[in-house]
Amino acid sequence: MWVPGAGSVQRMRTTRTIRIGLLGCGTVGGSFVHLVDAQRDEIERRTGLRLEIAEVAVRDTTRPRPGVDPSLLVDAPARIVDDPSIDLVVETMGGVDETRALVMGALRAGKPVVTANKELLALHGPELYAVAAECGVDLALEASVAAGIPLIRPLRESLIGEHITRVMGILNGTTNYILSQMTELGADYHDALGEAQRLGFAEADPTADVEGHDAGSKVAIIATLAFGRAVTAPDVFVEGISRITAEDIANADRLGYVIKILGVDDRYADASVGARVHPTMVPSTHPLASVRDSFNAVFVEGSGVDQLMFYGRGAGGHPTAAMMVGDTIDAARNLDAGCCLDFGELPPATIRPIDAVESAYYVSLDARDEPGVLAAIAGVFGAQRVSIRSMEQEGMGDEARLIFITHRAVEADLRATLSQLSGLDVVKNIGQVLRVIGD
Amino acid sequence: MWVPGAGSVQRMRTTRTIRIGLLGCGTVGGSFVHLVDAQRDEIERRTGLRLEIAEVAVRDTTRPRPGVDPSLLVDAPARIVDDPSIDLVVETMGGVDETRALVMGALRAGKPVVTANKELLALHGPELYAVAAECGVDLALEASVAAGIPLIRPLRESLIGEHITRVMGILNGTTNYILSQMTELGADYHDALGEAQRLGFAEADPTADVEGHDAGSKVAIIATLAFGRAVTAPDVFVEGISRITAEDIANADRLGYVIKILGVDDRYADASVGARVHPTMVPSTHPLASVRDSFNAVFVEGSGVDQLMFYGRGAGGHPTAAMMVGDTIDAARNLDAGCCLDFGELPPATIRPIDAVESAYYVSLDARDEPGVLAAIAGVFGAQRVSIRSMEQEGMGDEARLIFITHRAVEADLRATLSQLSGLDVVKNIGQVLRVIGD
Repeated sequence: MWVPGAGSVQRMRTTRTIRIGLLGCGTVGGSFVHLVDAQRDEIERRTGLRLEIAEVAVRDTTRPRPGVDPSLLVDAPARIVDDPSIDLVVETMGGVDETRALVMGALRAGKPVVTANKELLALHGPELYAVAAECGVDLALEASVAAGIPLIRPLRESLIGEHITRVMGILNGTTNYILSQMTELGADYHDALGEAQRLGFAEADPTADVEGHDAGSKVAIIATLAFGRAVTAPDVFVEGISRITAEDIANADRLGYVIKILGVDDRYADASVGARVHPTMVPSTHPLASVRDSFNAVFVEGSGVDQLMFYGRGAGGHPTAAMMVGDTIDAARNLDAGCCLDFGELPPATIRPIDAVESAYYVSLDARDEPGVLAAIAGVFGAQRVSIRSMEQEGMGDEARLIFITHRAVEADLRATLSQLSGLDVVKNIGQVLRVIGD
Repeated sequence: MWVPGAGSVQRMRTTRTIRIGLLGCGTVGGSFVHLVDAQRDEIERRTGLRLEIAEVAVRDTTRPRPGVDPSLLVDAPARIVDDPSIDLVVETMGGVDETRALVMGALRAGKPVVTANKELLALHGPELYAVAAECGVDLALEASVAAGIPLIRPLRESLIGEHITRVMGILNGTTNYILSQMTELGADYHDALGEAQRLGFAEADPTADVEGHDAGSKVAIIATLAFGRAVTAPDVFVEGISRITAEDIANADRLGYVIKILGVDDRYADASVGARVHPTMVPSTHPLASVRDSFNAVFVEGSGVDQLMFYGRGAGGHPTAAMMVGDTIDAARNLDAGCCLDFGELPPATIRPIDAVESAYYVSLDARDEPGVLAAIAGVFGAQRVSIRSMEQEGMGDEARLIFITHRAVEADLRATLSQLSGLDVVKNIGQVLRVIGD
């Protein structure tokens, strides 16, 4: 047993003050200031670091910001980056071009940078990571993906020796909220979107969320760090949820699935990378299926760890700021120790285009209800090397609808199948087609 | 856009070889050797570190160990610890007293130590953490809790600035497997245990698992790192699952709960810590409820992050070894950079005894089915300040059973309630009593 106080090993600790320059003071920046103020003494007790918010760059220095000392406000972010008395920069201003220059300037001035800026990192991450490594300071980005969930650090540290084969995630709270409402209340897409807007979960212009672009940025960042190969936003195939109907969700439920919009990063045996965002049928027994409301979750598969999942808040001022405070402390500890967490080499990934990606598929189609129809349709699947795992007929006669779930197939083969099916006389209409993940 | 090769920022990287001394070579140690061999080149590419298994200490050097070079085997672990050519020690031998001396020796010799030894850390962790900090080297313990899940690093880094109020986990795969079988197949406890033993999920002597001691060790380690206060195994209240019946599980299901054995660490407003392991009724909508089979999961609540969950394999050679490989790389990077991840000050926690812990409760009792009985029983609850949230009667007449779920109450008050109830004429028998967590 450890005897408290038997402490030849207890050390005297000296406190170091870390002067933080904060860029931006909106929801996340404001929460960051509040959390640092609330936790300052406890952080000092546990780490020997005293966090001081030294300067805050905002566009409008006259606007009152509750909890933020007005004397700290400045309107020139570049001044913070250049100020030699600032130890570390926390970036919550958003945007890409101006922010890229500021982050780069801070790193080159030897200041660690903490950011949650997914657009910036999805476009310029590999370049910025290389600059951080060159300058020997940290670029900490825990909050950029699944904001309130510690994911990036486990990927960069605990799992760095792991051969990760796939990362799949529910990476956007707005769309998960909409799909959860559709699933649980039978709401249709437009009503669920309207409700999400009313509650503030969705923006007035919801495009970035519902069309999958927000998740696409996160998919690029994750792929880069999980596979050690540079992947940027334009590499990611993106498809949104606006075409998902209440009927699709009811069909999925009957077959034992829920529909989620997933970001999926695959590393194939030839080391190529597939990166995509799309609505997906998820078996209801899969851990991702029970992630409801605006929660996010990231599911990791690897040769050593088997399956892992990280679950939590993907957005919100407090959860995002909480991760940024953790990043700030880590970066400050490293600054103090004169070291940084290396990103390693990140050569560009070989991207597998969506046509070459492999998945199982759900295909619904309206067909004539007469002898021989199924044989004709099954023949088309088979000729394109798409193997059918299950089929069921819903309705009879003129209302007959066939629902297929395939085994894993190459997307191009599935598209060829659909194209040929649409030319068959007996096929009246091809309905919904969705990618399916296994148990 | 980042232009690949536009690389004034690309650095030349020199490789450093890290000579690893491995203590013990059972299931985990063997998997560690295999994973390092399989990932060596990729790890070198990503980190500039080449991992070399230099020596392996085992009890019997003559036993063949597939995949392990016999010329590396030595039978004196102390020699590895003392060998100046060894950079880093990976401990998979288990045990407490001898291992403590070896770990201490390695740390004092400036060698980082990677361990999965939960018994050692639950008893001597705070002492060893202090020695590691004093010597300026890492003591990495990711695999000691929820072996294949990155939890410790997020707690020590991403969440270090977070005010964590509670950590609850399914921390033992054997008991989760047994309870899952009982829940899903209606099996009784002894049959499910026998099946777990037959499949190798449970030991011939299952005491450490089924009585909660294994989870108790993990609860102590988590509390120390989550709250920054030293908690050791004897501080943890432990209650096993052997008294749980198929009927309890059916009753729970009817009320919308599943029964899980949880490890729970609470930080109260007065900074005291409650640390306990016991069977618990978990609402079926709670993320922990869907953690099935032998999977583990850890649920974290904090003021900033709200709710987080980490899910994955809690045991097994490969998942455990995968986390130890990650730890090894991190420790080697820090060794190379001349820094280490500090544990900070860990003064002893003020432990709240189980009598003072607060929880909601499930109470079932057999009572006479006659007017006035409920009023008498409810009066006893009320007199002890235990507020009833719901009550239902099951059966009629002589078979009448009353099931209560209370609001949050102090455990001592609940015990006083039970003691008084057992003295009432109208109460024939007090049945199962279980702690309940909220949504």
